[in-house]
Amino acid sequence: MNIRVMKFGGTSLATIDHIIFASKKIINMTRNSKVIVVLSAMAGSTNSLVNQIKKINTLDSSESDLVLATGEQISCGLMSIYLNKEGIKSRTWTAWQVPIYTNNEYGKARIENIPKENILESFKYYDVAIVTGFQGISKENKITTLGRGGSDTTAVAMAAAFHAEQCDIFTDVEGVFTANPSIVPNAKKIDYITYEEMLEMASLGAKVLQTRSVELAMKYNITIQVLSSQIDKEGTFVVNDNKKMEKEVVSGISFSKDEAKVTVSGLLDKPGVSAGIFGSLAEANINVDMIVQNISQDGKTANVTFTLPQSELKKAVEVLEKIKNKINFQSLKTDEKVAKVSAIGMGMRSQAGVATKMFRVLGEKNINIQAISTSEIKISVLIDQDYTELAVRSLHSIYGLDI
Amino acid sequence: MNIRVMKFGGTSLATIDHIIFASKKIINMTRNSKVIVVLSAMAGSTNSLVNQIKKINTLDSSESDLVLATGEQISCGLMSIYLNKEGIKSRTWTAWQVPIYTNNEYGKARIENIPKENILESFKYYDVAIVTGFQGISKENKITTLGRGGSDTTAVAMAAAFHAEQCDIFTDVEGVFTANPSIVPNAKKIDYITYEEMLEMASLGAKVLQTRSVELAMKYNITIQVLSSQIDKEGTFVVNDNKKMEKEVVSGISFSKDEAKVTVSGLLDKPGVSAGIFGSLAEANINVDMIVQNISQDGKTANVTFTLPQSELKKAVEVLEKIKNKINFQSLKTDEKVAKVSAIGMGMRSQAGVATKMFRVLGEKNINIQAISTSEIKISVLIDQDYTELAVRSLHSIYGLDI
Repeated sequence: MNIRVMKFGGTSLATIDHIIFASKKIINMTRNSKVIVVLSAMAGSTNSLVNQIKKINTLDSSESDLVLATGEQISCGLMSIYLNKEGIKSRTWTAWQVPIYTNNEYGKARIENIPKENILESFKYYDVAIVTGFQGISKENKITTLGRGGSDTTAVAMAAAFHAEQCDIFTDVEGVFTANPSIVPNAKKIDYITYEEMLEMASLGAKVLQTRSVELAMKYNITIQVLSSQIDKEGTFVVNDNKKMEKEVVSGISFSKDEAKVTVSGLLDKPGVSAGIFGSLAEANINVDMIVQNISQDGKTANVTFTLPQSELKKAVEVLEKIKNKINFQSLKTDEKVAKVSAIGMGMRSQAGVATKMFRVLGEKNINIQAISTSEIKISVLIDQDYTELAVRSLHSIYGLDI
Repeated sequence: MNIRVMKFGGTSLATIDHIIFASKKIINMTRNSKVIVVLSAMAGSTNSLVNQIKKINTLDSSESDLVLATGEQISCGLMSIYLNKEGIKSRTWTAWQVPIYTNNEYGKARIENIPKENILESFKYYDVAIVTGFQGISKENKITTLGRGGSDTTAVAMAAAFHAEQCDIFTDVEGVFTANPSIVPNAKKIDYITYEEMLEMASLGAKVLQTRSVELAMKYNITIQVLSSQIDKEGTFVVNDNKKMEKEVVSGISFSKDEAKVTVSGLLDKPGVSAGIFGSLAEANINVDMIVQNISQDGKTANVTFTLPQSELKKAVEVLEKIKNKINFQSLKTDEKVAKVSAIGMGMRSQAGVATKMFRVLGEKNINIQAISTSEIKISVLIDQDYTELAVRSLHSIYGLDI
């Protein structure tokens, strides 16, 4: 049986007209395949549910997930009503009906297992299975949600479970771009990008796909196509390294303004100090990203600078204040006016001089580099937030992406 | 284990403030009992979902029920978040988690069975079980809804399943009144009313309780208290005949403007003609209420007049046009400007002259009676809709309810 997975995001389902428009793409697909459709909530609906909850308490219980899961129930029901009216045999599947089993981490659950019997059985009669994205069912039989962007992960997990070769992710952009087009007018749609590049892009600020969905696609070797729900045109294919012939040195430039910088000064330069800081942060479940350590001129004290998501800054400061007496630092400075700018590309592995080029162009533009982190396929620098757009445009140009 | 069932309607949950206010009544109740709370959707939310669906198609599939069932998921989740924040151990139960098994009649499903093991087990740890009203789960594992007002039925069914002695239905009025107070300023709250009287009132237009919930309460002998969620005061107790000492001749006056009248004229007066008309209507699932048959002066032809809900008038006319040749009638007239006004009371059974009083007072006010129907405990008349309020006030007065 030929099965295709098609996922539509919230902006592609914003109104009844959008839902009808998206349905037409599904109707076309039913000519050749059985179709598993995964839907997000209609744009704005999850935010308004979050706001209702926040009037009462924070979003931290299984009961929040019960409330948040209603958005996809509505979009799925409405689309199925339309498809059935058009004579397409479709039925809805909530995550608990599929079932999509997850662990018990409400609000950020992870998918563990998707038995495929029920939907396969339904394909004897139905041509379309419309599945609520973003959610699952825990072992204690309560609804879980997968975290923001979780519908991407649902879609890829369904593709994996049902051995679909390709998972189409319909969204409000034409694909993955070499940089954000609103900042770099010359940015171009990328035709092919590897899982590794996409992972770096996603985790470095490109908001096209949820990171976990890309990890999952890589693990099960599923081709993801990111494409527009509004125009009829091929999008960006996220593929295995082998499938991509030409390996650009740099495929794209991304940035994130959601970073915060913390500097702990006047630490005694002795073993175990860094372990004290980062151990305590890790215990509090705070993810630290870039780390820079300096020794003062007199050689007696050290400074540690690190970055973390802005949303975790307050918690991190609390943790550090608590251990101040134990690790003996003099001062704690924080800065939220920073940005992380990154160049990503598989070709970096075999090319020298990529970093040098970056440092040179930023120097020429008088942009100070506050921290650096690298991997095999990316270089990231932390800079003053005011220079973000300038840096992105300069890098886009220096790596030949403007052409 | 002492279990109490408390049901809150949509107007009692209209905003977060309403939900918090309702929660306080639940917190009080947890001092003496385990509490099963049954909630409707927040006021307005079901209507707005219905409107979304109607932009696409009619409300007639299981997919509509999936959409409509989201309203109660939200109100239940929000209330549980508040109760837990206040330190009350509560958890939500969707109908499929309880489970509340129904038949497969989507949109108007009937509850068939409620296993109580899951909630009873949860009461070892939790004090409050918050259950989504208005819905259930079908044998094919899809969400069903019970029809408008279905949360009342959920509440009484839970009371029956868990052997609760009383089911409190919180609403936006203080109880059941002798007539609609907006029409009859002298209308008074009734302290005790029998199931039979309440059933007649509900089916004759009083919108306080869903008819099926009263039938269920009568079957399982569960006392329903209808009371205000806004003030702290006893409401109306709906009880077994035995529990009500004084039996007023007439307990209340109700009316309905949702009726339509159909007159089929020029029928041949021979056996089987009425059967032809009403048999065809019954086959089309149309409920006919009052029926009057007249023979014309020449004795050769007959007229049949009957009433039915306005919502079914169009369908009824189609059915009759289709059989016109078979049953040979001359003309078909319809009238939606009618109202049914009823007097209800257990005491009627042992009192003569109740009907006479009604006909006399209506005659004095020059109100023409177009049809009459009676049961042991009610008399209904069909009149011109313009006279509804006058008729209700006159009857309220003549039966001594003004005092």
